[in-house]
Amino acid sequence: MKTLFERLIRFRDPSGRILYGDGPVGDDYIGKRTRLYSGTLPWDLQATDETGEIAEVLCPLPSTPIIYGVGLNYKAHIAEGGYATPKFPTIFTNPPDALNRPFSTVLVDPECLHMDYEGELAVVMGQDVKNATPTSAMDHVLGYTIANDVSSRYWQMPEQSGNQHGYAKSFDGFAPVGPLIVSARVADPDRMTIVTRVNGEERQNAPISDLLFKVGDIIAHLSRGTTLRAGTVIMTGTPSGVGRYMKPAVWLKEGDVVEVTVSGIGTIRNRFSFLSSQ
Amino acid sequence: MKTLFERLIRFRDPSGRILYGDGPVGDDYIGKRTRLYSGTLPWDLQATDETGEIAEVLCPLPSTPIIYGVGLNYKAHIAEGGYATPKFPTIFTNPPDALNRPFSTVLVDPECLHMDYEGELAVVMGQDVKNATPTSAMDHVLGYTIANDVSSRYWQMPEQSGNQHGYAKSFDGFAPVGPLIVSARVADPDRMTIVTRVNGEERQNAPISDLLFKVGDIIAHLSRGTTLRAGTVIMTGTPSGVGRYMKPAVWLKEGDVVEVTVSGIGTIRNRFSFLSSQ
Repeated sequence: MKTLFERLIRFRDPSGRILYGDGPVGDDYIGKRTRLYSGTLPWDLQATDETGEIAEVLCPLPSTPIIYGVGLNYKAHIAEGGYATPKFPTIFTNPPDALNRPFSTVLVDPECLHMDYEGELAVVMGQDVKNATPTSAMDHVLGYTIANDVSSRYWQMPEQSGNQHGYAKSFDGFAPVGPLIVSARVADPDRMTIVTRVNGEERQNAPISDLLFKVGDIIAHLSRGTTLRAGTVIMTGTPSGVGRYMKPAVWLKEGDVVEVTVSGIGTIRNRFSFLSSQ
Repeated sequence: MKTLFERLIRFRDPSGRILYGDGPVGDDYIGKRTRLYSGTLPWDLQATDETGEIAEVLCPLPSTPIIYGVGLNYKAHIAEGGYATPKFPTIFTNPPDALNRPFSTVLVDPECLHMDYEGELAVVMGQDVKNATPTSAMDHVLGYTIANDVSSRYWQMPEQSGNQHGYAKSFDGFAPVGPLIVSARVADPDRMTIVTRVNGEERQNAPISDLLFKVGDIIAHLSRGTTLRAGTVIMTGTPSGVGRYMKPAVWLKEGDVVEVTVSGIGTIRNRFSFLSSQ
């Protein structure tokens, strides 16, 4: 779809106002001035002549109707794990309250054991759509952003989950998203690379062209007989390199900082803090 | 939680206005007059002295933030299937657009093969809640209603779903809910029976006291580190007797009428109509 913006940032200015503006290139946002858009929803903005100063970067979406996740979607990861190639995307959901800011501290419930990251390219729908084809789907995409599909692997194990992936990822704040939405008219996922780092150490690094199910394929599958609403976030799957499959498995611990970078979009950076059970 | 109503119905009157009122006992609603409540959300109503005439019964919820489903939750069903007793409820979701009216025709997408019913007791949350205990959870329950967790078994098979239950049940209109919400202060699921009939033939019949995870257990599990929002619908699982496990399996066909009755609440009744692929 046509968007006024190429790169959209949502932020607080020094007076606390929540504003939309043109997203700066590069990783330094704070203190920069940017041209503003008026409106409350990222798919319904108007251009203005005003500028504003970025004091805090917010999630580019004020809210979401639902977050969809896709399992096992990088071809190299499927091959190295010896998995059969799936015929359709494997779909699970996170509820709206999982949405979190791109530079927030993720507060981990004391019962969420075996905490792990999943760096992912995310797609934001800009229009309601039903029964899209892989090609027509792209007309309804607002743009691309970055997500960390934070997961408590304890709750993802079959003994706890009955094999359903969603519960382990559905806790409040387990879906940091941002820092920008890059318009689908200027971004091409097949030319992007995703890298995830934990405390600066590289853990995931993959070309997004390795996706088995491309963005259009996923949207067509999700919209089969089903209305996808504007603001829906689709996390497209994670490449190899999550902590669960390190030998031995390595889990996130207090104070760890996870960064997910997608070339052409930017970086989200989230510290993890474990709540005490008292 | 305290509610003004014992049995809540949402309906259109002959002039087309959408109204809330006291739900009649028995299965005849149309043409009856009932005392009205003012307000737009079922957990935020005010009593009035007015009455209105029921012309069409609507879903008792105008919308829902999310619908949760629970798998394998009737003890007799677990035993007869030889399944291991799960340690926690198996959770999946349906999106808000799955919600449907209690007497609607369910329009089935042409790609939804192997259509099946699941009669279920459903719980409606009346307040936001996080980290509830099985006991405190009940303070946030608005009441009980009936759901049919309509399922395309084709899409639920592992080859299509990657073992995730949600997708097969997430199509628009696949969650008829109603006809009333019965307040938790007057309803006791342990004294209710659920019966599902297809074209009048009984297929499911179970005491709801046979639930492995009771309503409070399910809410405690869903609210662990997670904000459950008012209006959330929780379908508590289905007993044995679905078409998938008949020998041979029997699928719903054009014009079939599925009725789900829960004693003390009422009956939902949905006709199935299969859309053509043109």
